[in-house]
Amino acid sequence: MYRVGVIGGGQLARMMQPAAIALGIELKVLAENPDSSAKSAASMVGDYKNLETLKAFASTVDVITFDHEHVPVDLLEEIQRQGTAVRPSPSALIHAQNKLVMRKALAELSMPQPTWREIRNADDLIDFLEGRPSVIVKTPIGGYDGKGVRVVSTVQDVADWLENISAYGGSLLAEEKVEFVRELSQLSARNQSGEFSAWTLVQTVQRAGVCSEVIAPAPKSDHLESSVGIAKTISDGLGVVGVLAVEMFEDRAGNLLVNELAMRPHNSGHFSIEGAMTSQFEQHLRAVLDLPLGSTSLKAPYAVMLNLLGVDDKNTFVEHYPKAMRQYPDVKYHSYEKGARVGRKMGHITLIGDNWEELLERGKKARQILYGQSE
Amino acid sequence: MYRVGVIGGGQLARMMQPAAIALGIELKVLAENPDSSAKSAASMVGDYKNLETLKAFASTVDVITFDHEHVPVDLLEEIQRQGTAVRPSPSALIHAQNKLVMRKALAELSMPQPTWREIRNADDLIDFLEGRPSVIVKTPIGGYDGKGVRVVSTVQDVADWLENISAYGGSLLAEEKVEFVRELSQLSARNQSGEFSAWTLVQTVQRAGVCSEVIAPAPKSDHLESSVGIAKTISDGLGVVGVLAVEMFEDRAGNLLVNELAMRPHNSGHFSIEGAMTSQFEQHLRAVLDLPLGSTSLKAPYAVMLNLLGVDDKNTFVEHYPKAMRQYPDVKYHSYEKGARVGRKMGHITLIGDNWEELLERGKKARQILYGQSE
Repeated sequence: MYRVGVIGGGQLARMMQPAAIALGIELKVLAENPDSSAKSAASMVGDYKNLETLKAFASTVDVITFDHEHVPVDLLEEIQRQGTAVRPSPSALIHAQNKLVMRKALAELSMPQPTWREIRNADDLIDFLEGRPSVIVKTPIGGYDGKGVRVVSTVQDVADWLENISAYGGSLLAEEKVEFVRELSQLSARNQSGEFSAWTLVQTVQRAGVCSEVIAPAPKSDHLESSVGIAKTISDGLGVVGVLAVEMFEDRAGNLLVNELAMRPHNSGHFSIEGAMTSQFEQHLRAVLDLPLGSTSLKAPYAVMLNLLGVDDKNTFVEHYPKAMRQYPDVKYHSYEKGARVGRKMGHITLIGDNWEELLERGKKARQILYGQSE
Repeated sequence: MYRVGVIGGGQLARMMQPAAIALGIELKVLAENPDSSAKSAASMVGDYKNLETLKAFASTVDVITFDHEHVPVDLLEEIQRQGTAVRPSPSALIHAQNKLVMRKALAELSMPQPTWREIRNADDLIDFLEGRPSVIVKTPIGGYDGKGVRVVSTVQDVADWLENISAYGGSLLAEEKVEFVRELSQLSARNQSGEFSAWTLVQTVQRAGVCSEVIAPAPKSDHLESSVGIAKTISDGLGVVGVLAVEMFEDRAGNLLVNELAMRPHNSGHFSIEGAMTSQFEQHLRAVLDLPLGSTSLKAPYAVMLNLLGVDDKNTFVEHYPKAMRQYPDVKYHSYEKGARVGRKMGHITLIGDNWEELLERGKKARQILYGQSE
């Protein structure tokens, strides 16, 4: 009997359930609230920043893993000392929690990345802005989906962050604004024994800082070998156990530059549920349980995933299933059972087939129906 | 919000969960005991033959469906009167509960089937045995996986059943012993509005009356058109809502003869989880909710499913995952989390690819590892 505990009750924990049910793994979730997306697997509801809650939860499982990267590292170290395995380990996870720690580690591993600077005060930023019309400034911790990220031309644009800099750990991260031609993501997994396996390189399309579509494999790309190499170097170098998503820019010269890391199943890997022999959710469970990894081959030449983002505070999309399913019987529909809110990730759809342009076009039409818009 | 209640906590209810999680359907299960295979979705534990239990369960969902066909029809009619939809309806389900009722209905629909006779007493059986060295005698209700079925040469072989004939509804069913070359199964689904959709025709291999392997599509078969026609006639004719499995014999002359019916997801359809665009579990949920049906196209030229049957009272197979997964990373493993018992259906594995003979050979080797036997 394998028992895995997931901290966080979001859609990633939710989507681990089908994989756990198939393999016969007991999955327990520590959810933030009783109506979480993963509520049907929630064995406990509580605060993941509370050590006693974490300890109680950890005592019911063999290994702890994550739906998100917000659990304080010192608490996780305490859990580990208590005897429950934490995977990825706190020492790996810190690189997904803190973007400055990540940039420093990637530099040590000689990974390609945008030019960056640690910003301790206004002078550091003024210096980094020298010769650059604008740069990207990020809070090292707590940012995701465009939050905690700003395009900055003058110190004034982040005056509030600089005033409160101790709240961000004493530093901000500044990065050059990469003129990229597209964004790519390399999904891979590594188990506790060090076995490594990668999926195909995918292209992600962001709108307003949020992932909108994913095309797998990335069309017209000859980057797979180098992107898998980057993922393996990072995964081995940081000792990642579980799924690792390496989000990258492709610049005009065709170079890959690492943008972000996530050490858990990732939005850019949802295509793998229907599109690959082993989904990222199954692979993550195998990896953290130190089981051998599954085949990552594709089941079709292409898979296209489109996020369903809240359009208002009412439409949960499932009410449009009848019309969408009638017109698009081959689309795979995923609802996270979240309350409606503008811009919220509430579900996704996936199509697999031979022609990615056609799949994307049909997916957009199906999404319009779910959005309650005329085609 | 869609809410489906499943009566019965076996592996079929268990395998409806991933489909429900993906679509955002709330799935509730009335389980027989707290440690059922579908325990993670069990919202109630109780006796499905108790009307008050059934009523209480039914009041929590919009539609009732089934993991098995053993719920007494009169209780289901009561539930329907109370206002909860029961799908398939009791009037359809009776054909899957009672083999005599089924034979009569199939005769009215002019469906091809073995020669059969209703047996009310010893004389009826003696008459049917005339000119036949042996025949098959079945109890009309309660039999499955080889139980309630005997090969009979003389009246003595079923003397106990004849003595207790009132316990079987007053009659037994006798059928000619078909000299079949193989067994086939046609899976299909029909929703409440009457939309019908079939998967490919599959070949099933039985050992000791229990399904051992399924090959999809059935190799070298030109029966698909006629088998889909049979399934559609039965599904429409009996008013089936949900998945229908029509198990058939192929005789030496190449004729199809209907052997059994099941009105729920069926062992012969497990291949569809990985092998088809829409699994039988998702399709069943769509059908009983009267949602449009999903595409039944195959994701690969062949899918091969092998059952994992208990080998002793200890081996639950998951303890052999490390070795099996290492050698067979492309095999999809399914455990039903059932206690070990000889012959018990405890899980299955599925392989998809281009060559069914190779898939079957590799599947058998993977199964041997899980069985704890040397390859």
